[in-house]
Amino acid sequence: MRPPSLPVDEEVRQQARSLIHTARHAALGVLLENGLPFVTRVAFGTAPDGMPITLISDLAKHTGALRRHPTCSLLIGDPGPKGDPLTHPRLSLMATAEFMCRDTSRYAELRAHYLQTHPKSKLYADFADFHFVRFNIREAHLNGGFARAFTLTANDLGLEG
Amino acid sequence: MRPPSLPVDEEVRQQARSLIHTARHAALGVLLENGLPFVTRVAFGTAPDGMPITLISDLAKHTGALRRHPTCSLLIGDPGPKGDPLTHPRLSLMATAEFMCRDTSRYAELRAHYLQTHPKSKLYADFADFHFVRFNIREAHLNGGFARAFTLTANDLGLEG
Repeated sequence: MRPPSLPVDEEVRQQARSLIHTARHAALGVLLENGLPFVTRVAFGTAPDGMPITLISDLAKHTGALRRHPTCSLLIGDPGPKGDPLTHPRLSLMATAEFMCRDTSRYAELRAHYLQTHPKSKLYADFADFHFVRFNIREAHLNGGFARAFTLTANDLGLEG
Repeated sequence: MRPPSLPVDEEVRQQARSLIHTARHAALGVLLENGLPFVTRVAFGTAPDGMPITLISDLAKHTGALRRHPTCSLLIGDPGPKGDPLTHPRLSLMATAEFMCRDTSRYAELRAHYLQTHPKSKLYADFADFHFVRFNIREAHLNGGFARAFTLTANDLGLEG
């Protein structure tokens, strides 16, 4: 059986973009050294150009995994406390992680932009083991509830690199 | 740098078990045919023996992936609407998926037990494309907030097969 594929229209694009702009955390799926998947919670935000980013520590298992194998997946879109969690819209991103270099003006802009939406991160954003990581998106899957599944491109999300 | 490893005590075991028994959905990480990770939201519950289970459709991309490659990971533990989502406890499970056969008395018990906690699933639990899948746990990682990371065994969770 193949998943039903629905045509992507402007409403679908807007719903996916809105999930990216409002998400503050994500479930990150990485590959471990043994090639097996591993899912953890990470912070989630956007760079000034709208690209999804996170701020992660070298002390976390997922950080070493992303350095070895940058291909990953992110799930965003909170179900909220009420109703069937599977009727709430969510977005699965298929991405490649790129660690950002600290000593650039671009990094300072990115840091300032991120801290506007994640003010509590000021406490640790400058610790030596913390790094901003940008996610370059290859493809996304929006699930807007039962029988509302869509495949989107980076262009649909306004995120073409 | 290696992640700090803290000793597991009874309080940690109870916190992890409580996350399993109260979770109603999870972020599931599977491997696609190309070997890349993919994270989606699935329902989450427990069998009468306490083992984590889900109810998934053949129409979903993750179902085919689990049939081809049953090794997977699940993230449970909702952050809730307030505070820093990274201070809320969550549990990453490393598991192997096992599709349950329909025509057994064990299946009927499992179905009845699951529907007690997921009453809305009655609408589709008996559709031909839906399947209960049991997750045999190899290892779990509890993150109880910053600098509170623990590695647990199936035995710690009371889930030894």
